[in-house]
Amino acid sequence: MTSLAMIEAAAKRLHGHTRVTPLLTSPFLDDFAGRRILVKPECLQHTGSFKFRGGWSALSALDETARAKGVIAYSSGNHAQGVAHAATLHGAPSVIVMPSDAPQLKIDNTRALGAEVVLYDRATEDRDAIGQRLAGERDLTLIKPFDEPQVIAGQGTVGLEIAAQAAEFGVKGGEVLVNCGGGGLTSGIALALEARAPQMQVRPCEPKGFDDVTRSLKSGQIERNSQTSGSICDAILTESPGKITFPILQRLCGAGLVVTEDEALHAMALAFLRLKIVLEPGGAVSLAAALFHGSELHSETAIVVATGGNVDPEMFNQALMRFV
Amino acid sequence: MTSLAMIEAAAKRLHGHTRVTPLLTSPFLDDFAGRRILVKPECLQHTGSFKFRGGWSALSALDETARAKGVIAYSSGNHAQGVAHAATLHGAPSVIVMPSDAPQLKIDNTRALGAEVVLYDRATEDRDAIGQRLAGERDLTLIKPFDEPQVIAGQGTVGLEIAAQAAEFGVKGGEVLVNCGGGGLTSGIALALEARAPQMQVRPCEPKGFDDVTRSLKSGQIERNSQTSGSICDAILTESPGKITFPILQRLCGAGLVVTEDEALHAMALAFLRLKIVLEPGGAVSLAAALFHGSELHSETAIVVATGGNVDPEMFNQALMRFV
Repeated sequence: MTSLAMIEAAAKRLHGHTRVTPLLTSPFLDDFAGRRILVKPECLQHTGSFKFRGGWSALSALDETARAKGVIAYSSGNHAQGVAHAATLHGAPSVIVMPSDAPQLKIDNTRALGAEVVLYDRATEDRDAIGQRLAGERDLTLIKPFDEPQVIAGQGTVGLEIAAQAAEFGVKGGEVLVNCGGGGLTSGIALALEARAPQMQVRPCEPKGFDDVTRSLKSGQIERNSQTSGSICDAILTESPGKITFPILQRLCGAGLVVTEDEALHAMALAFLRLKIVLEPGGAVSLAAALFHGSELHSETAIVVATGGNVDPEMFNQALMRFV
Repeated sequence: MTSLAMIEAAAKRLHGHTRVTPLLTSPFLDDFAGRRILVKPECLQHTGSFKFRGGWSALSALDETARAKGVIAYSSGNHAQGVAHAATLHGAPSVIVMPSDAPQLKIDNTRALGAEVVLYDRATEDRDAIGQRLAGERDLTLIKPFDEPQVIAGQGTVGLEIAAQAAEFGVKGGEVLVNCGGGGLTSGIALALEARAPQMQVRPCEPKGFDDVTRSLKSGQIERNSQTSGSICDAILTESPGKITFPILQRLCGAGLVVTEDEALHAMALAFLRLKIVLEPGGAVSLAAALFHGSELHSETAIVVATGGNVDPEMFNQALMRFV
């Protein structure tokens, strides 16, 4: 189980290798939302998403022998790039198993960052099975995207930064909106804030039709999505919360927030216009929740973790043309 | 004359009000440029450009009586927004004289930030004359966009941050590429670096056809552009370097770098793709110089000041569709 001590240890290993992303603000967004909005732009993290933190944490926690043999990961794209880049920087080989319908940009980047990419069909094949088979054949260490203590610890460093940076704004409480797939980032942040900013409450954010975490938190047991493709929010489509992450989410998080694809696109357009950052749809869900679901929030301040920016230009343009 | 002491004093007044923008990197950009590229994304500054620094510096340096009467500025858009926002936050009224062909987004934002906007025709009217007349009529303090010591001091804080942040990367030398209109930012950075990182050399960057600073540095006297409109790099179109700024540029800067509009658009596309930031054409000229004019540089490291991101979505989309 990931603990605060593990997150703090990860923060030490990440220091100087990951980027401390700032907290951004805009009076236009505050007006729009009717409350103070602080945005943590993890799109500015290396490889364009927070996933590099978990990748670096996992790679740096391996013993040298395992690292030299290499690692394997399965991912829709952001975990792929995070692990590939972290592995290459550690001098370790990496194999990444990616769905064949992942954005071309993410597939290309993963290769360019030094990984061997293996594609699979999201509808008919089981990525876990493929990952485990390849890992066994080549003696690679499998780095799971979220249900992995050292990955959760790495993502949790976002929470440590939020606590320290919000305090500089005089903010000690408020709701922290986090895009949630399997819950690695969300649970890591929740653990960090439990210790460092206990007056903050984490709210998982999901796209409509893929709200497994929101439903799981309501029912008290792990619920599943009927599908894991078919949304533009590809970065956060997972079948269900993890076995490790769900108990943490259940213990520490408030209710989930669910937004439409159009709300995510609109949030991307406003992030372009008001913050000058590039978000992908799955990275803008939390901002969409803050902007369009304010009635479901109860705090003066919403801290929005904008998780990634690896978006194809056509999709980005669609957001701008429809919503600026 | 602006001095290091004035820049340091401005930094104290700016502390907690302006954003300390990070230094961004990308292995893809390093590969493309053939050298290390560190990007200072001032598009992430409040109001979307570095101009808020100079605006805040000037407003905070005024005595209370003058501030209560209000300020006036003339600007193609970024200085306008910077002064308007800084004035409103200081509780001071502001009048902004803007060219009627400025991007609509900049005009709208300036109004929304609390300013009274007065439009003029760039081809037939003299903005300085208009500004001075209005200032006289209403007893407003004129805040010039660059030839103003406290504005230069505010922009110079970018240089203080570069010296400190580059040192964290182990970088003490290198060329610092700065988009240059009238030279307020460029001269401020040069003054700061003269003291804090004397092994760095500032290189002014301009769009083709508007290379007054480059030509002035070559000839040793102030040269003028034949026009001040007709480029997509609207943010940095000025007739000539300033009377205050030019001697500083002449004493401290290396030769100018001149890029085409297409190179600026290409740099915007690569900033979208690799850094996840939004740049306007005039804000991307320095990055274009680093990426496409490497043969004119002589250092292992290029530090690029990406000065602003206030771009209309149509222009941004043009960059993506042509160059991603």
